Amino acid sequence: MARMIRPLANVHEQLRRLPGIGSKTALRLAYHIIDMPEEEVRRLAETLLEAKRQIRLCDICYNLTDAETCEVCGNAGRDHSVVCVVEQPQDVMAMERSRGYNGVYHVLHGVLSPLDGIGPDNLRVKELLRRLQGDTVREVIIATNSDVEGEATAAYLAQLLKPVGIVISRIAHGLPVGGDLEYADELTLSRALENRHRM
Amino acid sequence: MARMIRPLANVHEQLRRLPGIGSKTALRLAYHIIDMPEEEVRRLAETLLEAKRQIRLCDICYNLTDAETCEVCGNAGRDHSVVCVVEQPQDVMAMERSRGYNGVYHVLHGVLSPLDGIGPDNLRVKELLRRLQGDTVREVIIATNSDVEGEATAAYLAQLLKPVGIVISRIAHGLPVGGDLEYADELTLSRALENRHRM
Repeated sequence: MARMIRPLANVHEQLRRLPGIGSKTALRLAYHIIDMPEEEVRRLAETLLEAKRQIRLCDICYNLTDAETCEVCGNAGRDHSVVCVVEQPQDVMAMERSRGYNGVYHVLHGVLSPLDGIGPDNLRVKELLRRLQGDTVREVIIATNSDVEGEATAAYLAQLLKPVGIVISRIAHGLPVGGDLEYADELTLSRALENRHRM
Repeated sequence: MARMIRPLANVHEQLRRLPGIGSKTALRLAYHIIDMPEEEVRRLAETLLEAKRQIRLCDICYNLTDAETCEVCGNAGRDHSVVCVVEQPQDVMAMERSRGYNGVYHVLHGVLSPLDGIGPDNLRVKELLRRLQGDTVREVIIATNSDVEGEATAAYLAQLLKPVGIVISRIAHGLPVGGDLEYADELTLSRALENRHRM
């Protein structure tokens, strides 16, 4: 035989589709799940479905939320005049962990990627423009990643937002704090040099 | 905030419990799952539950099956007089992949591990003894792993089955085929020497 029984093969197939889960890991997980008490498998399955049902996008910034607006947008103590534009909800989490930012966010849900057919209409760009009407916002910080797509998206947004007449800035790239100059990659190093500032 | 919204935190917590899934992987998977279409999440959840409901243990060998007896036990073309004793259903799969075995199996579902409170009563040992009554089986091949628990379990079973008066053998351990002698670990090498045979 060497072939798996159908229900096990189904679990294996479903798990393999998850990012970063290869065939062997999926099989190990499948065997583990089949070995779990039924009650626990039910809890796992229901947790996934519940999360999918309860989580929606914030009406204002499009971050994940289980309410109409997310905790950041609903917080009067945050500076609503500064909007940090990020690619994904994960990026909001990373920024919040740093505790260095008191403004609000705007989640694009992706980056421009013409080769994958992803243009501005597939991102929350219209929604960003709409947010900038009125005069609440005085600065937009573009914090997309520094890979090719992230840089292209940053450049596109900077161009697009220029006529709005507010400050557009880009998050700084340079040497990671605590990182050794000796071990920095060339791109990071040349970026750190470019972005040098007077002391 | 930096804290996750509740439904996301729940998914994260459930996924972290899976073996080999650390906090970061669990978070990445959680975000991915929340990003999946609801239909796909439902399919994933249902596949897990269905597998748990449909998969049971074979009445004869205790391997996983979705019928009363597994495909191996139900196959008249297999040699039912040779029983290979393995630790886990995964081991059956590995043996079957090798295509080198035409007997049947017996899955213990674990190994003796006094420190974890796992004794013979927690494994399918009674069931193995019961299988050996009657005179169908003429050889038992013990194929538990070669770690401490696997070896102890093999020794225990050999002792226990001796009075039954059938052939008890142990699967061979030695140099992996294609493996370089130079890179073999000491234990494997000394085992390979011990188990040398005349040419």
